[in-house]
Amino acid sequence: MECISCQTPKQDELICETAYWRVILAPNQSYLGRCFVTLKRHCGDLAELKQEEWLDFAEIIKRLESALKKSFKATMFNWTCLMNNAYQVDPPNPHVHWHFRPRYNHKVEFAGAIFEDPEFGHHYDRARTQEVSDRVKKKIIEKIKENFKREI
Amino acid sequence: MECISCQTPKQDELICETAYWRVILAPNQSYLGRCFVTLKRHCGDLAELKQEEWLDFAEIIKRLESALKKSFKATMFNWTCLMNNAYQVDPPNPHVHWHFRPRYNHKVEFAGAIFEDPEFGHHYDRARTQEVSDRVKKKIIEKIKENFKREI
Repeated sequence: MECISCQTPKQDELICETAYWRVILAPNQSYLGRCFVTLKRHCGDLAELKQEEWLDFAEIIKRLESALKKSFKATMFNWTCLMNNAYQVDPPNPHVHWHFRPRYNHKVEFAGAIFEDPEFGHHYDRARTQEVSDRVKKKIIEKIKENFKREI
Repeated sequence: MECISCQTPKQDELICETAYWRVILAPNQSYLGRCFVTLKRHCGDLAELKQEEWLDFAEIIKRLESALKKSFKATMFNWTCLMNNAYQVDPPNPHVHWHFRPRYNHKVEFAGAIFEDPEFGHHYDRARTQEVSDRVKKKIIEKIKENFKREI
Protein backbone atom coordinates (compact mmCIF):
# COMPACT_ATOMS: atom_id res chain seq x y z
CA MET A 1 0.00 0.00 0.00
CA GLU A 2 1.27 3.44 -0.96
CA CYS A 3 2.23 5.75 1.93
CA ILE A 4 1.10 9.34 1.42
CA SER A 5 3.48 10.53 4.16
CA CYS A 6 6.42 9.28 2.07
CA GLN A 7 5.47 11.46 -0.88
CA THR A 8 7.33 14.71 -1.41
CA PRO A 9 5.10 17.41 0.11
CA LYS A 10 3.80 20.31 -1.93
CA GLN A 11 6.39 23.04 -1.51
CA ASP A 12 3.71 25.62 -0.79
CA GLU A 13 2.61 23.70 2.34
CA LEU A 14 6.08 23.17 3.75
CA ILE A 15 7.14 25.23 6.75
CA CYS A 16 10.49 23.59 7.29
CA GLU A 17 12.54 20.49 6.74
CA THR A 18 15.25 19.32 9.15
CA ALA A 19 17.56 16.31 8.89
CA TYR A 20 14.80 13.90 9.97
CA TRP A 21 11.44 15.70 9.98
CA ARG A 22 9.14 17.81 7.81
CA VAL A 23 6.77 20.46 9.18
CA ILE A 24 3.69 21.00 7.03
CA LEU A 25 0.71 23.30 7.59
CA ALA A 26 -2.53 21.33 8.06
CA PRO A 27 -5.42 22.20 5.70
CA ASN A 28 -7.73 22.45 8.74
CA GLN A 29 -6.79 25.63 10.59
CA SER A 30 -9.41 25.29 13.36
CA TYR A 31 -6.40 25.95 15.62
CA LEU A 32 -4.38 28.66 13.88
CA GLY A 33 -0.98 27.30 12.91
CA ARG A 34 -1.99 23.67 13.17
CA CYS A 35 0.76 21.54 11.59
CA PHE A 36 1.85 17.98 10.95
CA VAL A 37 5.41 17.05 11.90
CA THR A 38 6.25 13.99 9.82
CA LEU A 39 9.29 11.70 9.98
CA LYS A 40 11.11 11.72 6.66
CA ARG A 41 11.81 7.96 6.63
CA HIS A 42 9.05 5.36 6.61
CA CYS A 43 8.71 4.06 10.17
CA GLY A 44 5.44 3.09 11.81
CA ASP A 45 6.11 3.21 15.56
CA LEU A 46 7.58 5.76 17.98
CA ALA A 47 9.38 2.86 19.67
CA GLU A 48 11.59 2.55 16.59
CA LEU A 49 12.75 6.16 16.48
CA LYS A 50 16.53 6.67 16.70
CA GLN A 51 18.16 8.94 19.28
CA GLU A 52 19.13 11.51 16.66
CA GLU A 53 15.51 11.61 15.43
CA TRP A 54 14.26 12.29 18.98
CA LEU A 55 16.78 15.07 19.56
CA ASP A 56 15.96 16.66 16.21
CA PHE A 57 12.25 16.46 17.11
CA ALA A 58 12.97 18.15 20.46
CA GLU A 59 14.58 21.05 18.57
CA ILE A 60 11.54 21.33 16.28
CA ILE A 61 9.26 21.57 19.33
CA LYS A 62 11.35 24.43 20.72
CA ARG A 63 11.50 26.32 17.45
CA LEU A 64 7.90 25.71 16.38
CA GLU A 65 6.38 26.67 19.74
CA SER A 66 8.55 29.78 19.86
CA ALA A 67 7.60 30.70 16.27
CA LEU A 68 3.88 30.34 17.05
CA LYS A 69 4.21 32.49 20.16
CA LYS A 70 5.96 35.19 18.13
CA SER A 71 3.62 34.92 15.14
CA PHE A 72 0.20 34.78 16.81
CA LYS A 73 0.82 34.88 20.59
CA ALA A 74 -0.22 31.22 20.95
CA THR A 75 -0.84 30.43 24.63
CA MET A 76 0.12 26.75 24.80
CA PHE A 77 0.35 23.68 22.59
CA ASN A 78 -1.15 20.19 22.16
CA TRP A 79 1.05 17.43 20.72
CA THR A 80 -0.36 14.04 19.72
CA CYS A 81 0.95 10.98 17.93
CA LEU A 82 -1.96 8.70 17.09
CA MET A 83 -1.83 6.99 13.67
CA ASN A 84 -5.25 5.37 14.17
CA ASN A 85 -6.41 5.76 10.56
CA ALA A 86 -3.53 3.59 9.32
CA TYR A 87 -5.20 0.66 11.13
CA GLN A 88 -8.40 0.89 9.11
CA VAL A 89 -6.74 -1.14 6.36
CA ASP A 90 -5.19 -4.59 6.49
CA PRO A 91 -2.23 -4.77 6.63
CA PRO A 92 -1.83 -1.38 8.33
CA ASN A 93 0.96 0.83 7.01
CA PRO A 94 1.50 3.57 9.65
CA HIS A 95 4.05 6.36 9.24
CA VAL A 96 5.13 8.34 12.33
CA HIS A 97 3.71 11.87 12.36
CA TRP A 98 2.74 14.34 15.07
CA HIS A 99 -0.32 16.58 15.21
CA PHE A 100 0.62 20.01 16.52
CA ARG A 101 -2.23 22.24 17.69
CA PRO A 102 -1.44 25.70 19.06
CA ARG A 103 -4.08 26.76 21.57
CA TYR A 104 -5.24 30.32 22.26
CA ASN A 105 -6.82 32.09 25.21
CA HIS A 106 -7.76 34.93 22.85
CA LYS A 107 -9.18 35.60 19.41
CA VAL A 108 -6.67 36.20 16.58
CA GLU A 109 -7.29 38.28 13.48
CA PHE A 110 -4.78 37.60 10.77
CA ALA A 111 -4.74 38.34 7.04
CA GLY A 112 -8.42 39.29 7.24
CA ALA A 113 -9.50 35.99 8.80
CA ILE A 114 -10.64 35.39 12.37
CA PHE A 115 -9.44 32.44 14.42
CA GLU A 116 -10.93 31.43 17.74
CA ASP A 117 -10.37 28.65 20.26
CA PRO A 118 -13.69 28.22 22.05
CA GLU A 119 -12.41 25.02 23.70
CA PHE A 120 -9.35 26.66 25.27
CA GLY A 121 -8.52 24.93 28.59
CA HIS A 122 -10.20 21.75 27.31
CA HIS A 123 -9.51 18.93 24.86
CA TYR A 124 -9.39 19.95 21.21
CA ASP A 125 -12.58 19.52 19.19
CA ARG A 126 -12.05 17.42 16.07
CA ALA A 127 -15.53 18.23 14.78
CA ARG A 128 -14.80 21.95 14.45
CA THR A 129 -13.06 22.75 11.17
CA GLN A 130 -11.80 25.93 9.55
CA GLU A 131 -10.64 25.87 5.97
CA VAL A 132 -8.68 28.91 4.81
CA SER A 133 -8.21 30.41 1.35
CA ASP A 134 -4.93 29.83 -0.49
CA ARG A 135 -4.05 33.47 0.13
CA VAL A 136 -4.50 33.19 3.89
CA LYS A 137 -2.72 29.82 3.99
CA LYS A 138 0.26 31.35 2.21
CA LYS A 139 0.40 34.23 4.68
CA ILE A 140 0.19 31.89 7.70
CA ILE A 141 3.07 29.81 6.33
CA GLU A 142 5.18 32.90 5.56
CA LYS A 143 4.66 34.24 9.06
CA ILE A 144 5.55 30.98 10.82
CA LYS A 145 8.54 30.38 8.54
CA GLU A 146 9.90 33.86 9.23
CA ASN A 147 9.86 33.27 13.00
CA PHE A 148 10.94 29.63 12.74
CA LYS A 149 14.09 30.64 10.86
CA ARG A 150 15.06 33.20 13.49
CA GLU A 151 15.23 30.39 16.04
CA ILE A 152 18.08 28.57 14.31
CA MET B 1 -0.95 26.71 43.40
CA GLU B 2 -0.09 23.17 44.47
CA CYS B 3 0.93 20.78 41.67
CA ILE B 4 -0.56 17.30 42.05
CA SER B 5 1.96 15.89 39.54
CA CYS B 6 4.77 16.87 41.92
CA GLN B 7 3.33 14.79 44.77
CA THR B 8 4.82 11.37 45.46
CA PRO B 9 2.51 8.90 43.72
CA LYS B 10 0.72 6.15 45.60
CA GLN B 11 3.08 3.19 45.42
CA ASP B 12 0.25 0.87 44.42
CA GLU B 13 -0.35 2.87 41.21
CA LEU B 14 3.30 3.07 40.16
CA ILE B 15 4.46 0.91 37.26
CA CYS B 16 7.98 2.24 37.08
CA GLU B 17 10.25 5.12 37.85
CA THR B 18 13.27 6.02 35.72
CA ALA B 19 15.82 8.81 36.22
CA TYR B 20 13.43 11.47 34.89
CA TRP B 21 9.92 9.98 34.53
CA ARG B 22 7.25 8.09 36.45
CA VAL B 23 4.79 5.69 34.82
CA ILE B 24 1.46 5.44 36.67
CA LEU B 25 -1.64 3.44 35.79
CA ALA B 26 -4.63 5.69 35.02
CA PRO B 27 -7.80 5.11 37.05
CA ASN B 28 -9.82 5.08 33.80
CA GLN B 29 -8.98 1.81 32.04
CA SER B 30 -11.27 2.39 29.02
CA TYR B 31 -8.13 1.44 27.08
CA LEU B 32 -6.56 -1.46 28.99
CA GLY B 33 -3.16 -0.43 30.31
CA ARG B 34 -3.79 3.30 29.97
CA CYS B 35 -1.03 5.17 31.82
CA PHE B 36 0.32 8.61 32.60
CA VAL B 37 4.02 9.19 32.02
CA THR B 38 4.94 12.16 34.18
CA LEU B 39 8.17 14.17 34.33
CA LYS B 40 9.65 13.99 37.84
CA ARG B 41 10.69 17.67 37.93
CA HIS B 42 8.21 20.53 37.70
CA CYS B 43 8.34 21.82 34.12
CA GLY B 44 5.36 23.09 32.16
CA ASP B 45 6.38 22.89 28.50
CA LEU B 46 7.84 20.20 26.24
CA ALA B 47 10.07 22.92 24.74
CA GLU B 48 11.97 23.03 28.04
CA LEU B 49 12.79 19.32 28.23
CA LYS B 50 16.49 18.46 28.39
CA GLN B 51 18.15 16.04 25.98
CA GLU B 52 18.62 13.40 28.68
CA GLU B 53 14.90 13.64 29.53
CA TRP B 54 13.94 13.07 25.88
CA LEU B 55 16.24 10.06 25.54
CA ASP B 56 14.94 8.57 28.79
CA PHE B 57 11.38 9.11 27.52
CA ALA B 58 12.28 7.35 24.24
CA GLU B 59 13.41 4.32 26.28
CA ILE B 60 10.15 4.33 28.24
CA ILE B 61 8.16 4.30 24.98
CA LYS B 62 10.09 1.24 23.80
CA ARG B 63 9.74 -0.64 27.06
CA LEU B 64 6.13 0.31 27.76
CA GLU B 65 4.86 -0.51 24.26
CA SER B 66 6.74 -3.81 24.33
CA ALA B 67 5.35 -4.61 27.81
CA LEU B 68 1.78 -3.92 26.67
CA LYS B 69 2.21 -6.11 23.60
CA LYS B 70 3.49 -8.94 25.78
CA SER B 71 0.90 -8.44 28.52
CA PHE B 72 -2.30 -7.98 26.50
CA LYS B 73 -1.33 -8.16 22.82
CA ALA B 74 -1.98 -4.43 22.37
CA THR B 75 -2.14 -3.62 18.64
CA MET B 76 -0.82 -0.03 18.60
CA PHE B 77 -0.54 3.03 20.83
CA ASN B 78 -1.74 6.63 21.12
CA TRP B 79 0.57 9.19 22.79
CA THR B 80 -0.63 12.68 23.67
CA CYS B 81 0.79 15.63 25.58
CA LEU B 82 -1.98 18.17 26.13
CA MET B 83 -2.02 19.89 29.57
CA ASN B 84 -5.20 21.81 28.72
CA ASN B 85 -6.75 21.56 32.20
CA ALA B 86 -3.83 23.45 33.74
CA TYR B 87 -5.02 26.51 31.79
CA GLN B 88 -8.40 26.60 33.48
CA VAL B 89 -6.84 28.47 36.39
CA ASP B 90 -4.96 31.76 36.43
CA PRO B 91 -2.01 31.66 36.60
CA PRO B 92 -1.77 28.25 34.93
CA ASN B 93 0.65 25.79 36.50
CA PRO B 94 1.19 23.01 33.92
CA HIS B 95 3.41 19.99 34.57
CA VAL B 96 4.59 17.89 31.59
CA HIS B 97 2.87 14.51 31.40
CA TRP B 98 1.95 12.13 28.60
CA HIS B 99 -1.28 10.20 28.13
CA PHE B 100 -0.53 6.68 26.93
CA ARG B 101 -3.46 4.73 25.45
CA PRO B 102 -2.84 1.20 24.16
CA ARG B 103 -5.31 0.37 21.38
CA TYR B 104 -6.72 -3.07 20.56
CA ASN B 105 -8.17 -4.69 17.46
CA HIS B 106 -9.59 -7.42 19.70
CA LYS B 107 -11.42 -7.93 22.99
CA VAL B 108 -9.28 -8.75 26.04
CA GLU B 109 -10.40 -10.73 29.06
CA PHE B 110 -8.11 -10.29 32.01
CA ALA B 111 -8.52 -11.02 35.73
CA GLY B 112 -12.22 -11.63 35.16
CA ALA B 113 -12.83 -8.26 33.52
CA ILE B 114 -13.56 -7.57 29.85
CA PHE B 115 -11.88 -4.74 27.93
CA GLU B 116 -12.94 -3.62 24.47
CA ASP B 117 -11.86 -0.91 22.05
CA PRO B 118 -14.93 -0.17 19.92
CA GLU B 119 -13.18 2.88 18.43
CA PHE B 120 -10.15 0.96 17.17
CA GLY B 121 -8.85 2.58 13.96
CA HIS B 122 -10.34 5.91 15.07
CA HIS B 123 -9.63 8.66 17.59
CA TYR B 124 -9.98 7.65 21.24
CA ASP B 125 -13.30 8.39 22.91
CA ARG B 126 -12.87 10.45 26.10
CA ALA B 127 -16.54 9.98 27.03
CA ARG B 128 -16.18 6.22 27.41
CA THR B 129 -14.87 5.26 30.86
CA GLN B 130 -14.08 1.99 32.57
CA GLU B 131 -13.29 1.94 36.25
CA VAL B 132 -11.75 -1.26 37.58
CA SER B 133 -11.78 -2.79 41.06
CA ASP B 134 -8.67 -2.52 43.24
CA ARG B 135 -8.06 -6.22 42.70
CA VAL B 136 -8.11 -5.92 38.89
CA LYS B 137 -6.03 -2.73 39.00
CA LYS B 138 -3.40 -4.53 41.07
CA LYS B 139 -3.28 -7.42 38.61
CA ILE B 140 -2.96 -5.09 35.58
CA ILE B 141 -0.05 -3.28 37.26
CA GLU B 142 1.67 -6.54 38.22
CA LYS B 143 1.37 -7.84 34.68
CA ILE B 144 2.74 -4.68 33.03
CA LYS B 145 5.54 -4.38 35.62
CA GLU B 146 6.61 -7.96 35.04
CA ASN B 147 7.01 -7.38 31.28
CA PHE B 148 8.39 -3.85 31.68
CA LYS B 149 11.24 -5.15 33.85
CA ARG B 150 12.21 -7.81 31.33
CA GLU B 151 12.86 -5.04 28.81
CA ILE B 152 15.68 -3.46 30.81
